Amino acid sequence: MWLNDTSELIELLKKKGAKRVALQFPEGLKRRSATVAAALKDAGFYVIISGDPCYGACDLALDTLTYADVLIHFGHAPVDAQPDVIFELYPMDFDVAVLENVLPFLKGGSVGLVTTVQHVHLIPAMERFLQSKGISCRVAEGGRRTPTRGQVLGCSFAAAKASGADEILFVGTGLFHPIGIALSTQGRVIALDPLTGSVQEVSGDTLMRRRFAVMEKARGAKNTGIIVSTKSGQQRMDLARRLASLSPTAVIVTMREVNPDELLNLGFACYVNTACPRLTYDDQVRFPVPLLSPQEFEILCGVRAWDEYTIDEIV
Amino acid sequence: MWLNDTSELIELLKKKGAKRVALQFPEGLKRRSATVAAALKDAGFYVIISGDPCYGACDLALDTLTYADVLIHFGHAPVDAQPDVIFELYPMDFDVAVLENVLPFLKGGSVGLVTTVQHVHLIPAMERFLQSKGISCRVAEGGRRTPTRGQVLGCSFAAAKASGADEILFVGTGLFHPIGIALSTQGRVIALDPLTGSVQEVSGDTLMRRRFAVMEKARGAKNTGIIVSTKSGQQRMDLARRLASLSPTAVIVTMREVNPDELLNLGFACYVNTACPRLTYDDQVRFPVPLLSPQEFEILCGVRAWDEYTIDEIV
Repeated sequence: MWLNDTSELIELLKKKGAKRVALQFPEGLKRRSATVAAALKDAGFYVIISGDPCYGACDLALDTLTYADVLIHFGHAPVDAQPDVIFELYPMDFDVAVLENVLPFLKGGSVGLVTTVQHVHLIPAMERFLQSKGISCRVAEGGRRTPTRGQVLGCSFAAAKASGADEILFVGTGLFHPIGIALSTQGRVIALDPLTGSVQEVSGDTLMRRRFAVMEKARGAKNTGIIVSTKSGQQRMDLARRLASLSPTAVIVTMREVNPDELLNLGFACYVNTACPRLTYDDQVRFPVPLLSPQEFEILCGVRAWDEYTIDEIV
Repeated sequence: MWLNDTSELIELLKKKGAKRVALQFPEGLKRRSATVAAALKDAGFYVIISGDPCYGACDLALDTLTYADVLIHFGHAPVDAQPDVIFELYPMDFDVAVLENVLPFLKGGSVGLVTTVQHVHLIPAMERFLQSKGISCRVAEGGRRTPTRGQVLGCSFAAAKASGADEILFVGTGLFHPIGIALSTQGRVIALDPLTGSVQEVSGDTLMRRRFAVMEKARGAKNTGIIVSTKSGQQRMDLARRLASLSPTAVIVTMREVNPDELLNLGFACYVNTACPRLTYDDQVRFPVPLLSPQEFEILCGVRAWDEYTIDEIV
């Protein structure tokens, strides 16, 4: 792994003829930037680090790349094709025997297996383990933004839906992904945290109730800001234009970071978020006014039925 | 003023043939964005608002402009020539008779008069007032970034220095500008707050003592991040490259917002700020580690003498 041993990276950069190298790290790995930069400098490269916040491959430091021959993006798989960007994953291992904990929760039909990018390298071992227990395990290819078999993102649950399985097993930390899968597939979802070994069945009901409350609060808002991200992989301007056309008091607002202080400063009564979908569902408590998903705004504008409520994904 | 009456603005946009209009407001005026946007929408324009933080004309929403024919930037005078950007000032009036309060502080020689962009329209009236009191008042043209006679910015005190006067009278709120002028001109500076009428002689001594303490703390830091802004009017990459060449453990770091959390995440022991100079002097208390000016780093690297200490300006 290049974070620990840069020799393979240096070899690759030399082969590509790159002399000026830009580095980008997600928040949890930023601390390693000085060490990686020092190793590359010692090897004769000109190095520049992107110091902006980064939460995914949807947020590439293309501005920093303008000063370099190549950008090395650590910790995420690509969500779109980008020339001159090299993606270096940060795989996190665990003992797949932890899947033993899941067995009592399974109903006996087919199981669709999905995980996040840190653990996708363990998909084959997890498949073998489940099959050795007599479980019919299905792993599907994901969508355009999830290039690896069995991979899901907070904004793309395609690999879960495409498995066509009776129930979904999500292996990873946190509840955001499995709740999203439950809302996206409308099926049963079991979540296993591979680090603690804890298992639970996950439902989207609580989130749905919270969202309906937010929508009620937004109803009749005197004006609406339709947020469009300027990040490389989050720009959904066409969607935003369509949403803005639904209301005479809606205006498009571009933002790099969707930030509670800025929403308050701008002073719209309500916002629709076409940037990272996770902000809408996970972070409402941080925001001073309702932050709706595109689908929720469509329902309030009367162009989508309530029973067509679905979670927002970037396809 | 277009903020209150958009009819003149609408006329201008029609004359220019602009159909898609991007709007950008500084933090203190952002609340007006929805009203201005609604008026332009009613007049048939396609409107898009930049929702990112904005503290000066050095931070133009060029990304938002890519979706529009023209960007209207409110509240600041231009710091660099930009096609398709219209600058709309936000003049703030006061009664120039408040300059009476200054008279007891003046020593009798020539007085260089400077102010910030909100009040530059009152420069002729202030000149006349001082001259009517028998004071030899000098108002100089500024530098490249201060297009209006007598105007200073937090990063450009050229109009003060160029006055060649015996002492400088700064009219405006806050002490950052007059302290900067004192350090830049090495002369006597009187500051008048035109809203409260309070007057004081300003010295750079306290700031200097604080800066020397920060420099001592930074001495011997194990590594250094040289911050380069990606904002339109703050990019000083050539300066950053020269500074990075002064130390084997210095690496260039690009940032949009220079943010204490990100500096902590990156984990460098010390930073040099080539972005907005004011961050270095005004905001050190917010930063977890020393944030040096370019000149301070040069002193620590032994390529500038201590008695050549000067305040950082963007020229």
